[in-house]
Amino acid sequence: MNKKGLALFLRARVRPPHPPLPPNQGRYPDSPPSQSLPLPNSNMDPSLSNHHRANNISPSLMLKDVKDWMHASMSIPAHKIEPVDTNLENFLQGYLGLAQEDRRELILVLAKDYDVNRTRVRDLMQQYLSLEPPHALNDGHSSGPEEEGILSAFYRTERNLRDAIKPMYALFFERLNAYPGGLKLLVVLRADLLAILAKENIPSLRALDSFLKEKLITWLSPASLGLHHITWDDSASLLEKIVAYEAVHPIKNLLDLKRRLGVGRRCFGYMHPAIYGEPLIFIEVALLKDVAVSIQDVLWDEPPTPECEASCALFYSITSTQPGLAGINLGKFLIKRVIELIRREMPHITTFATLSPIPGFMQWLLSKLASQFKIGKTETEDASTLSHMGFGSVFRENILLPEEEKMIVDSSVGYAVGNSGLEIMKNLLASTNNEWIKSDCLLKALKPPLLRLCARYLLKERKRGKALDPVANFHLQNGAMIERINWMADQSEKGLQQSAGLMVNYVYRLDHIEEYAELFINEGRIHASPALQQYVNNKPGPQGWSEEIDPENQHKTSKYYH
Amino acid sequence: MNKKGLALFLRARVRPPHPPLPPNQGRYPDSPPSQSLPLPNSNMDPSLSNHHRANNISPSLMLKDVKDWMHASMSIPAHKIEPVDTNLENFLQGYLGLAQEDRRELILVLAKDYDVNRTRVRDLMQQYLSLEPPHALNDGHSSGPEEEGILSAFYRTERNLRDAIKPMYALFFERLNAYPGGLKLLVVLRADLLAILAKENIPSLRALDSFLKEKLITWLSPASLGLHHITWDDSASLLEKIVAYEAVHPIKNLLDLKRRLGVGRRCFGYMHPAIYGEPLIFIEVALLKDVAVSIQDVLWDEPPTPECEASCALFYSITSTQPGLAGINLGKFLIKRVIELIRREMPHITTFATLSPIPGFMQWLLSKLASQFKIGKTETEDASTLSHMGFGSVFRENILLPEEEKMIVDSSVGYAVGNSGLEIMKNLLASTNNEWIKSDCLLKALKPPLLRLCARYLLKERKRGKALDPVANFHLQNGAMIERINWMADQSEKGLQQSAGLMVNYVYRLDHIEEYAELFINEGRIHASPALQQYVNNKPGPQGWSEEIDPENQHKTSKYYH
Repeated sequence: MNKKGLALFLRARVRPPHPPLPPNQGRYPDSPPSQSLPLPNSNMDPSLSNHHRANNISPSLMLKDVKDWMHASMSIPAHKIEPVDTNLENFLQGYLGLAQEDRRELILVLAKDYDVNRTRVRDLMQQYLSLEPPHALNDGHSSGPEEEGILSAFYRTERNLRDAIKPMYALFFERLNAYPGGLKLLVVLRADLLAILAKENIPSLRALDSFLKEKLITWLSPASLGLHHITWDDSASLLEKIVAYEAVHPIKNLLDLKRRLGVGRRCFGYMHPAIYGEPLIFIEVALLKDVAVSIQDVLWDEPPTPECEASCALFYSITSTQPGLAGINLGKFLIKRVIELIRREMPHITTFATLSPIPGFMQWLLSKLASQFKIGKTETEDASTLSHMGFGSVFRENILLPEEEKMIVDSSVGYAVGNSGLEIMKNLLASTNNEWIKSDCLLKALKPPLLRLCARYLLKERKRGKALDPVANFHLQNGAMIERINWMADQSEKGLQQSAGLMVNYVYRLDHIEEYAELFINEGRIHASPALQQYVNNKPGPQGWSEEIDPENQHKTSKYYH
Repeated sequence: MNKKGLALFLRARVRPPHPPLPPNQGRYPDSPPSQSLPLPNSNMDPSLSNHHRANNISPSLMLKDVKDWMHASMSIPAHKIEPVDTNLENFLQGYLGLAQEDRRELILVLAKDYDVNRTRVRDLMQQYLSLEPPHALNDGHSSGPEEEGILSAFYRTERNLRDAIKPMYALFFERLNAYPGGLKLLVVLRADLLAILAKENIPSLRALDSFLKEKLITWLSPASLGLHHITWDDSASLLEKIVAYEAVHPIKNLLDLKRRLGVGRRCFGYMHPAIYGEPLIFIEVALLKDVAVSIQDVLWDEPPTPECEASCALFYSITSTQPGLAGINLGKFLIKRVIELIRREMPHITTFATLSPIPGFMQWLLSKLASQFKIGKTETEDASTLSHMGFGSVFRENILLPEEEKMIVDSSVGYAVGNSGLEIMKNLLASTNNEWIKSDCLLKALKPPLLRLCARYLLKERKRGKALDPVANFHLQNGAMIERINWMADQSEKGLQQSAGLMVNYVYRLDHIEEYAELFINEGRIHASPALQQYVNNKPGPQGWSEEIDPENQHKTSKYYH
């Protein structure tokens, strides 16, 4: 291939275009990539093959077979491992060949028919409760062989009870974990399980999920994950996965990929020896002079900053690849390991920051605007019925300051319709053509309220004690602080749609990581730069915020009284 | 360094000489290497450092500190991980700095003070037993949200109970496993624990060990171990460990090491990502034309067989490096993986065999000879008191055939004293100078009974359903068969002392591995070559074996009636 041909080849699109995803889906760390993405292996490991699907086996016969193999893998006593292997291998291949509906049935069978043996548990409990705990348990040493015998028997009973109260599928999971390819299969099975639970609430499946998740956490211990520096010298099969999985800033072509792995960039993946050929999670880093304010600066920094001149390591993308590991925070350990490694190898790098999406911002803002608009309309139509309509807990809020309201109305002529700044803003942001970013006037009018509301969203909005924004919550519980919100930082269609083009810099202050994490986890305290603090502490007097939001009392939202 | 200097360097002894070990200790797979061996890291990982030991901290103050760190690591609730890290790190360093006596005290505290919270368990059990299991548990689907709620609550209670019945140290172990260096520390801790249990039987420590062993099995899943081909290109620090740990055929010098890693040889280690820089177990393989009959042929095969001409992969050494992993059979998986790999890479290799030591043979034989000699003497002195002396279960056995007896007596003139072949044989074999191998006459006289008795030892002698010889048991449960006993196969001092120079070839027949393993594990059946079978099936009429040994009834040993 000549030079021009190679250039064309490198610039060719590496993955089919796909419709943008709704916010809160597959766009932030430790959330499963959306099922609609054309991932090559979202639910299937090609290395495990799927020859059964290729064969002409009737589906129902096959489901029965897979059930039989599952049963056989569990029915042989614990010390007789040998003959189980064939059954495990068959199960593994068979499961991957099953259609989703059959997988669902199989998982239901697993959860119900291989649950705790409650008759046995009750018998053992009665037996245990009738035993007097041996004295030697409390007063230290046993005094002779007889007492030793009693003690040993007591410990044995407890051990039996501990084994009995495990569901029967525990043994199956243990055996799969020990068998090559089995851990990956368990991750696939959990992904299927979560997909079912997203649609149906079945308590036995919840119990199965909670048990399996606990097991996966212990088997995928961060200490046993290998940190792999992913480079252009890695295999095409690995790089293909990076392209397929990268969900934060999709990789356009080979040139884009090559740049992300080249000078001034780093890409690290966490590999587990039992899950071959793909990282469980990977992070992309740019080495820069300053903390970047827009993703375009990061992705198109050409020529890149010479590495010896960089003083900032900017984490601009972190992607977890396995839907079946949802809720298992490997990213935290990955970031720590990467910071450690960069500090050691490049002592001139002193700032560790992110340029992160704010995936939930627009969804939150639009619903806020819509509810306020509704209250406004209701008030106009029939103010007195408000309290009867269940709006008791939805207060009329000061979304826009009076001067913001005015500027929006003034600058919107010709772009959007609406009777108030609130309505105009709602209509502008909700429209899919993003006309507003083409008008300097509108940009100028929308900038102050969007920055201010975004600060409020990031610093104040919570859900069950966590930060409402999942990416914010992720970095805050890892010990980062919120440094800066950047205007027009991601002008891609996705960036505009999920956060009105805003992005945020979280900063990991090396001396405070543990402290900040502890304060956030234990007390819900968020550290933010003074500039951002000012946004939310703003007290504009009787016409403005009447009350500061108290993170301890989230039911009290800020109110504005007319 | 010139060529001659290099040659001298390579030939220099790589480890200090050490006294030969008693049989059954540190000489067979999955047994802890003897504590008396000068292992660099038998109980301590140098990478974890031991700065505390270097500091002048008073030992008792330090023990208190380590206890405090241990306590702090466990006392913080499960979801608040952050602040525990410092405590874990301190504990890790502190433990490694403790003297054995302090470690013992700490382990006792762990076992007793962080045991099961029995008050809580009893409360939860009472609560559980008073609950009626929801109907929906049995008849499949729940019918509505209310029933779903009841079911969920029931599963939650069961889960709480499952958590409560774990010892409190479970959480500590989990956290150590997730923390870098923690898994290695747990392995060290178990080694210490086993060393205590070898001297004292403390039920709470047995319970601790059984719990920890189960955890280590699940964390060191064979599927997550990496198979590493160890070569001369590996780091000196890794190779140093191979030299230090190799317990079957000690490595004499760098030349010896280089040969074992060079052409016609393979060395594979099982590495775990959380236990850095040393294999948990490693195996040495020689590629040969035929199954070797002596270890000297294997270790000094110079020039080595060209690899393309080899048809046999001979496993001549397998060494587990971690005393703390005793009883956890990783060797089985290692052998399987290595066979698979060699088959794939070298299809011309069709025979997979071992040349194995027989570590327990002499110990068994000498005690057999001694007891028979004693019975013989007792009979002469006072035959009638025999049954009163508790010898009821020790039968007079036919150890030697009449013709063997005669040959030994005839050939022993000038070498050993004794009134019978039995006594002479006992004295010859028990002497540490091994004079007997210098006499052709004695060799000729001893060869037939030694081969015959060794076959009986390997094929018939059992202990709790397992083969008495630990190496035999290891290979048989992995699915090997016993092929051949080799005369004068290991003439090293150690070889003579533990098995009168005999070695054995086990063969892995690829089509029968699973079948043989299953039959051995489930029914105790051992597969052996016809030649070996003949030794033990020998029925020499009224003056010989009166009864075949029945593996199902091991209390009936073969008897010979005068």
